[in-house]
Amino acid sequence: MSDDRHSPTAAAMPRPYRNTLSVINFADRNLAAAEREGLMALYVKPDKNRSVFWSAASEDRQVTDFVRCSYLGLDNHPQILEGAIEAVRRHNALHWSCARTRLNFSMLGELEDALSDLFVARVITYTTVLAANMGALPLLASGHLTENKRPTIVFDRLAHATLAFHKPVVANETRVETIAHNDLNALEDICRRNDRVVYVCDGVYSMGGSAPIGDLLALQDRYGLFLYIDDAHGISLFGTSGEGFVRSQVGRSLGERTIIAASLGKGFGASGGLLMLGTLRQEELFRRFSIAYAFSASLNLAAIGAAMASQALHRTEELKLRQDALGQRIIAFDGKVASEQAGSTLPIRTIEFGGERSAIHAARRILNKGFFTSAIFFPTVAKGKAGLRICLTASHSIEEIEGLAHGISEVLDEAG
Amino acid sequence: MSDDRHSPTAAAMPRPYRNTLSVINFADRNLAAAEREGLMALYVKPDKNRSVFWSAASEDRQVTDFVRCSYLGLDNHPQILEGAIEAVRRHNALHWSCARTRLNFSMLGELEDALSDLFVARVITYTTVLAANMGALPLLASGHLTENKRPTIVFDRLAHATLAFHKPVVANETRVETIAHNDLNALEDICRRNDRVVYVCDGVYSMGGSAPIGDLLALQDRYGLFLYIDDAHGISLFGTSGEGFVRSQVGRSLGERTIIAASLGKGFGASGGLLMLGTLRQEELFRRFSIAYAFSASLNLAAIGAAMASQALHRTEELKLRQDALGQRIIAFDGKVASEQAGSTLPIRTIEFGGERSAIHAARRILNKGFFTSAIFFPTVAKGKAGLRICLTASHSIEEIEGLAHGISEVLDEAG
Repeated sequence: MSDDRHSPTAAAMPRPYRNTLSVINFADRNLAAAEREGLMALYVKPDKNRSVFWSAASEDRQVTDFVRCSYLGLDNHPQILEGAIEAVRRHNALHWSCARTRLNFSMLGELEDALSDLFVARVITYTTVLAANMGALPLLASGHLTENKRPTIVFDRLAHATLAFHKPVVANETRVETIAHNDLNALEDICRRNDRVVYVCDGVYSMGGSAPIGDLLALQDRYGLFLYIDDAHGISLFGTSGEGFVRSQVGRSLGERTIIAASLGKGFGASGGLLMLGTLRQEELFRRFSIAYAFSASLNLAAIGAAMASQALHRTEELKLRQDALGQRIIAFDGKVASEQAGSTLPIRTIEFGGERSAIHAARRILNKGFFTSAIFFPTVAKGKAGLRICLTASHSIEEIEGLAHGISEVLDEAG
Repeated sequence: MSDDRHSPTAAAMPRPYRNTLSVINFADRNLAAAEREGLMALYVKPDKNRSVFWSAASEDRQVTDFVRCSYLGLDNHPQILEGAIEAVRRHNALHWSCARTRLNFSMLGELEDALSDLFVARVITYTTVLAANMGALPLLASGHLTENKRPTIVFDRLAHATLAFHKPVVANETRVETIAHNDLNALEDICRRNDRVVYVCDGVYSMGGSAPIGDLLALQDRYGLFLYIDDAHGISLFGTSGEGFVRSQVGRSLGERTIIAASLGKGFGASGGLLMLGTLRQEELFRRFSIAYAFSASLNLAAIGAAMASQALHRTEELKLRQDALGQRIIAFDGKVASEQAGSTLPIRTIEFGGERSAIHAARRILNKGFFTSAIFFPTVAKGKAGLRICLTASHSIEEIEGLAHGISEVLDEAG
């Protein structure tokens, strides 16, 4: 890129956004403590369903994993694995090192056509949701998606780290605001005061809860609000085609003012990320100018093959069977453990312990009982809101869920 | 993330960095023209070596590709493909949707150990170089890599788009400067005036040329300059273990002040990206705080298996044979076509045409002759510096290279 200028004054600027120095200063010792407890970065071998082999103190132990976000249990589905292998085998290639603006596997075009048909949107794939989000934000900031007028871009305070990261990049191009989580009054107030507004949020939040999609669509009707929603944790779990938490609440057409990011991993069971767009012009802009598209590589063929197999599965009865199985497991968990999210059809549950060390201690005690959960603390959640995160999936057995629930109860009792 | 504040004043700020609006306004029509000529985003099927099947006007044509950066021709090496397939088959999994701070395939740990051994550095892998770079820049800005003092971060004006993109993020945390390409005097001047300086550049530039590594290491010796070098296009091509253009010029130990980013695609022939780090503390910080590590997913198993096979190949005689074959092909090309890079051992050549439409027209004429090259123009290169880019590889035949050279000469003659 050659369009920027010398900026000697940057050091004098305030730091309104992320302060990596203070994040590290606060979190480093907690992370070290969690590492000492053997809770971070486990290296394990896959076993059946949600079970993994974990080498601890030189013996292989089996633990049930509640960390992975394979909500429908598709990540080891034989057809998806066979899709991955067959794509590599058939094309005698895994990966091409060139920008998508240059050269693509024809199978990637077929995959995007199939996903566009499945989700009734213009779908572009990316290697990760991180890459999809990175490309989208400057395009939103440019004004080219909002009648060539630079919009005010409003972030939900809890929007995913891969979105919030880019606030300074966006602020270099247009006005940025951050509002409290799901604060629709604040958002409406900004819509009243500004001609063009883009709202950036998650559909399903990775630490529990969701965006009020119906209310956001009402603001869109009233004010022309543009929505950019990261539905990484919502895809496949909802909708007759698995179109996800957000897409299943938008009408038959995505329209001109809604972009949805989603994962090809997680519920979808393959690997990668995608964007759902509503118009030809949006597709053109993203395929010409999004950074990952023009300056990074595409999904590899194994991921393409896996996603192709998964989209085919999404068209069969198996999708609903797995969605229903997930629902039953969520109900089973909620019957045993109280949580802020109890009663929701979303699969993420958090148990708040408050102190960082209490959460780490609890996760360790539960791991000793054979269940791996995520100890969550700043910067993943706010300071003093540490706890456990549990990802329920369709391929956990009811016994595993009851075992985890029992373990959590015991640890909560011990903690008083 | 929950550590940022409301910033209502952002809109009043100047835009010292990338201006997406004006990039699009300038480049959109050129990209549309290149698309109309059938030069952008080709969807093709792999054939043998550098040949691909391209469907044009409803017939399959075979063209020789000079766009892909598989410099050693490893991207369709049977052992690498078998490595990809076997990893998926053996583990019954392709991808796990969870942060690397949580859960990893044990084979990923084995891969990073093997790469660390091969390149004599602490290696962390990422899904893409884009993701590796994104995670590194805020850590550099935080000062945690420079004795806990925030450094001045100096970008080469031509540093890759996936680095330059983040200047506003870096400027939110510390002072940012951009210097002319390879301007060592400017860099030394900044080193004299500042206590801690980080220089961010490419090792091998994607549009030709390289960084003066020896001179940079001299500045490091003299001033303690910290180097962050993206060697995506240099890996595997140089060094007895394929450690790359940069690593092969640094001594036996990487030291405390040099970080190298590189690709697991391109010369390496697999899929993904990596960082080479010099110290335990650096590794700890990256494994705890780099954004893609904590908030995105890992390489999928096909990529892990492919990289494992490639690193094994890097330990055999085949590496040198392929490095030598590449060298011969570069000499063959230079014997026929004059370019700014002629005589260099690097595999990228650019032919400047000046005007964007001239470059597009030339690429189209050459494609008609059966050779696919990259038409390069703003924002990939500076305005008015449009041309062709040619990536030479070890698996182009000498006949293919002579055919391309002949095609280029004809088109240059026509253009006068």
